[in-house]
Amino acid sequence: MAVPPPTRPHRLLPLSLGLFQAALLLFFTFFVTYDGPLARLEDANVVANQLYGTFPLFQDIQVMLVVGLGLLLTFLPRYGLSVLTHNFLLFNFSTQWALVLQGLLHHFQQGQVHLDLQSFLSAEFAAVTVLISVGAVLGRTSLCQLLVVATCEVAFYLISEWVIITQLGVLDVGGTITIHVFSCYFGLGVSKAVFGATPQPLHPKETPTPRSDLQSLVGMLILWVFWPSFVAVLCQPGDAQHRAILNTLLAMSASAVTAVVASGLLAGDGKLSASHLQNGSLAGGVAIGAVADMAVPPVAALALGSLSAVACVLGFKFLTPLLTRKLRLQDQCGIHNLHGLPGIIGAVASAVAMLVAPGDASRSHLSPVTPSGANASEVGSGVGRQALCQAGGLAVAVGASLLAGLLTGTALRLPCLARPPERLCFDDSLYFKSQAQAESPGLCGTAEEGALALKERV
Amino acid sequence: MAVPPPTRPHRLLPLSLGLFQAALLLFFTFFVTYDGPLARLEDANVVANQLYGTFPLFQDIQVMLVVGLGLLLTFLPRYGLSVLTHNFLLFNFSTQWALVLQGLLHHFQQGQVHLDLQSFLSAEFAAVTVLISVGAVLGRTSLCQLLVVATCEVAFYLISEWVIITQLGVLDVGGTITIHVFSCYFGLGVSKAVFGATPQPLHPKETPTPRSDLQSLVGMLILWVFWPSFVAVLCQPGDAQHRAILNTLLAMSASAVTAVVASGLLAGDGKLSASHLQNGSLAGGVAIGAVADMAVPPVAALALGSLSAVACVLGFKFLTPLLTRKLRLQDQCGIHNLHGLPGIIGAVASAVAMLVAPGDASRSHLSPVTPSGANASEVGSGVGRQALCQAGGLAVAVGASLLAGLLTGTALRLPCLARPPERLCFDDSLYFKSQAQAESPGLCGTAEEGALALKERV
Amino acid sequence: MAVPPPTRPHRLLPLSLGLFQAALLLFFTFFVTYDGPLARLEDANVVANQLYGTFPLFQDIQVMLVVGLGLLLTFLPRYGLSVLTHNFLLFNFSTQWALVLQGLLHHFQQGQVHLDLQSFLSAEFAAVTVLISVGAVLGRTSLCQLLVVATCEVAFYLISEWVIITQLGVLDVGGTITIHVFSCYFGLGVSKAVFGATPQPLHPKETPTPRSDLQSLVGMLILWVFWPSFVAVLCQPGDAQHRAILNTLLAMSASAVTAVVASGLLAGDGKLSASHLQNGSLAGGVAIGAVADMAVPPVAALALGSLSAVACVLGFKFLTPLLTRKLRLQDQCGIHNLHGLPGIIGAVASAVAMLVAPGDASRSHLSPVTPSGANASEVGSGVGRQALCQAGGLAVAVGASLLAGLLTGTALRLPCLARPPERLCFDDSLYFKSQAQAESPGLCGTAEEGALALKERV
Repeated sequence: MAVPPPTRPHRLLPLSLGLFQAALLLFFTFFVTYDGPLARLEDANVVANQLYGTFPLFQDIQVMLVVGLGLLLTFLPRYGLSVLTHNFLLFNFSTQWALVLQGLLHHFQQGQVHLDLQSFLSAEFAAVTVLISVGAVLGRTSLCQLLVVATCEVAFYLISEWVIITQLGVLDVGGTITIHVFSCYFGLGVSKAVFGATPQPLHPKETPTPRSDLQSLVGMLILWVFWPSFVAVLCQPGDAQHRAILNTLLAMSASAVTAVVASGLLAGDGKLSASHLQNGSLAGGVAIGAVADMAVPPVAALALGSLSAVACVLGFKFLTPLLTRKLRLQDQCGIHNLHGLPGIIGAVASAVAMLVAPGDASRSHLSPVTPSGANASEVGSGVGRQALCQAGGLAVAVGASLLAGLLTGTALRLPCLARPPERLCFDDSLYFKSQAQAESPGLCGTAEEGALALKERV
Repeated sequence: MAVPPPTRPHRLLPLSLGLFQAALLLFFTFFVTYDGPLARLEDANVVANQLYGTFPLFQDIQVMLVVGLGLLLTFLPRYGLSVLTHNFLLFNFSTQWALVLQGLLHHFQQGQVHLDLQSFLSAEFAAVTVLISVGAVLGRTSLCQLLVVATCEVAFYLISEWVIITQLGVLDVGGTITIHVFSCYFGLGVSKAVFGATPQPLHPKETPTPRSDLQSLVGMLILWVFWPSFVAVLCQPGDAQHRAILNTLLAMSASAVTAVVASGLLAGDGKLSASHLQNGSLAGGVAIGAVADMAVPPVAALALGSLSAVACVLGFKFLTPLLTRKLRLQDQCGIHNLHGLPGIIGAVASAVAMLVAPGDASRSHLSPVTPSGANASEVGSGVGRQALCQAGGLAVAVGASLLAGLLTGTALRLPCLARPPERLCFDDSLYFKSQAQAESPGLCGTAEEGALALKERV
Repeated sequence: MAVPPPTRPHRLLPLSLGLFQAALLLFFTFFVTYDGPLARLEDANVVANQLYGTFPLFQDIQVMLVVGLGLLLTFLPRYGLSVLTHNFLLFNFSTQWALVLQGLLHHFQQGQVHLDLQSFLSAEFAAVTVLISVGAVLGRTSLCQLLVVATCEVAFYLISEWVIITQLGVLDVGGTITIHVFSCYFGLGVSKAVFGATPQPLHPKETPTPRSDLQSLVGMLILWVFWPSFVAVLCQPGDAQHRAILNTLLAMSASAVTAVVASGLLAGDGKLSASHLQNGSLAGGVAIGAVADMAVPPVAALALGSLSAVACVLGFKFLTPLLTRKLRLQDQCGIHNLHGLPGIIGAVASAVAMLVAPGDASRSHLSPVTPSGANASEVGSGVGRQALCQAGGLAVAVGASLLAGLLTGTALRLPCLARPPERLCFDDSLYFKSQAQAESPGLCGTAEEGALALKERV
């Protein structure tokens, strides 16, 4: 019963991470600097005010990603330590890697990369895609594999975001298309390539317990509360940002109620499913991102929130089993239901919003500072094109991410990146020294199975 | 052992919630809009600054209500999923319902309701009353019943708040009278009407475990930290808001220490009671609301915090058992100790503050923009009246809420709103599919009782 | 098996705390007031803006200290309630006590102490030192003893901070020297004096369980997220504050990744140690404090973060066992690894930064408002002196705190301050009524040991 494969990646992991940190230090030594103080001293007040406006939202977003998302994933009862740690490590590694690539791609001016809170924020947005994608393969992959996913995905994301936002001119302030749709199909692509056509049997440690469900629910609540900050942080300050916050609040509120409705109606006995609530309540936040700062009427935000929550719950009930059965597609956390379906709904909604309420919907973007109505005719002429752009952006995000995910997933099958053995899937003991286990060997005189069952329950 | 009643409400619940969502969509379609961008464009900076000032506090309040209060209520060890979900659902449902009623009552201008962050905030304040009140009947009522409570209470709250603040001119920036006192006696009225004169025996699942107490303690700490935001969010920006924050900080700090003192002195062996700390530490925040932005000296805030913590702990020790025995009054979470007694103390303190330090205490309210002292004579003449107003507001809050609560509670006895059977009280399995239980049937070969006892403990 | 000593302190505790609250009320009655409204009315906008800038950071810091640090310490599986409560009580008691002493020492103007958010913040910074120091003796000391530690340490801290910052002119915006180094060696001094040369055997309740490790990890994540607020809150608004935030973000990010690298490389099988991650990830935040707002290049922050994480993990692996063996030094939470070593590294780095990049590093401090370069010559001449100051500050912090800690620890050996008996160390039942234990006496028919072992595990 010796298990040699997982030890090799364990050795590999800290070494390669250490090398990456060394390379990062080198890169920063030669290329990265802060903005010079000279330029800033005369408008220190402006900097301070911008900081006061952005920094609280930035902190909110970090709470979401590090604490909220981490806890949301602890629904796997014996994998909590690993999930929190992996999420945290992937967040930091991906942010650092994105800072490097962003520096190389965008910010190269006069041989120096100028670092500010804005570039950190963009880097963390790139990291979000990784945190979402790995949800598809959580628990059955090694940390080494996840770091390879992060390395590839950040690069693909930056290219895809550049194409979608800069080249196509897609409006997507909350990342519905560029983050959620992209990372969902990337993750599914990785999952398909890693697991191939082999069905993954239900693992005994995969089933949530009441306690792990509760932890996960707390994570959802943290994400739910701070989601408006995530959507609004990149908005034009003032009117557009205010609207983005309100739209997100409405969408989240509708999602929360509708998730209960949908989960309750689907069950024969009216009982709720914890996973429906953990995901459905957040679906509105995913969907609202693309239209959040457009001048859509409030009812649109409500409708979008309800619709995406319904789609999410239906996805868990019908689509995920179908995909597993027909396509042998493994989606551990149901990212297709939380990020894929609501993301598509949101992207379509943004195209429709362009067509239905052209002047209103696009005003804040196309002419944020000029008086309203001044260039209504120009706006009118560009509306059909903008709707097409939104649809095009969605198509690019789905297509590119699937392809990139499949490529990345294929790389994960390299022999040096062994998957954990089935016995150690979803188990903290793969990554963590377990002090307690070593010290309390016996338990009610039962065999290991009994102890396992017990620990599953409580 | 068939249990038909709880299944009917389960069917009823998602259906009626779904209908409500549909009605909400209709209402928003025809009546609700955002402020027009035209009016805003010229003072976008003002909007942005207001937003920067309010939004972080708004987020703090959401964390309090959704995460903090939710966790505080998880002291029931087997009811955690339900408590978190019910709290979350009631918060969202009540906010939506308050937005509708507020729109109809206050904001109807030119046939349109203008939605902004301020109206969302008011709606969430209305929702708070529901979250507090249901604490009295937690665990022994169905979610259907709680939604009926929410429907009635939000309406009664809006009327009561209109009478107390707008008509009587009561000063209550932190909601001591309008929110805490009102919701406490409303909840007690509901409890009395629902349970009548039948004593509720101690349920085996009612007893907190060390772990559920710890979760609840974390919830208290979250509420404790963010309470200043709750009290200060509606204050005049600048001086009054600064003072409200400081007064709340002082009151909360005094409460925290005094709760330990009171709990320790009351116990024969000096051991602390977790529920004393979970509630007593917050009592100062409840009491300080009515005087928070008045120019009372700092010592008043400290004294108020200590006094209300003592009242809260004494309430748990002596008053709650007395009310249960004499009046057959069921108060599951002790809302009378956390919201009733400190609320009354705070209301009385606000009247006293008016009499003792008239010029100082009321200046910021009666003349927030004129130079101090300019209208001291006018202020002086209105002081006795203002003190009477505060007392009158308290009387209205207690009387109206008790009556409204009794009425609402009577409605909960309708046959279509069955209470859960005793066996399923305080138990998540009433509302949630329990995957783990279905899969690990045996446990150490003991009977169900042993397993139950075990799960209670750990 | 009667245990008389712990009951006496229990009686003593609420009484003395109650007396302290009464004395606090008296002090506030006669000496403390808010700033007069007259002076403020004309610049209400400035106050409001300052408040908007500081208050969100202030809230972040309270979350860190009350929720984050509290949870971080719950790695002791059966001591969670006590740890959270003690941390919370010590935080409040120390803040109040610091407000009193600060009032007496610094703010005595015209017989009145003027209280504002800034003085509250300083008082909470004093409280932080207590929360850190008690980590050395956690679980083996009584709450009475910890309150004596708080009483002494706050006084010593205020003196030491006055010497280091005001007299020596040390630059230390994030408290690396004045808070972290000071509180670490104070705590170690206390530990040495309390436990003397008696080795403390490993207690069965000392070993973390997967669940308690997970809780502690969540606490670490909360601290990690909000650390930039802690470092930046006292910075000059604008450029320096922006830089402090970025430097802290970089240092924390490097620490997080490097802690995994170091922990993985040190273990033979590549498995991670939870305590390495819980502490190593935060080491960068401790180290960056002294240089955070200096104009050091970004790579310095990264390097500092990595270096301190390595030092922290190596400390846990080699130094703590060594100190325990050779010096019989008890350091329960490893504060020397998280606060001592990274603090020293950060202090040395601040001296080096002064020498290497004098003009840049010190500009924002020495001439925050004049145009850069204007007084470059003066700056240049003071650089060597400033580097010496930083080193001198470190020496003072280490020496004074060790001495003060030894003195304080000696006081803890007074007969009226009995330590808890070995049997009740690390056990909530010393401080809390345990309702559940009283009601479920039997468990699977096994003896108490079995139940204990079980509860340890789950």
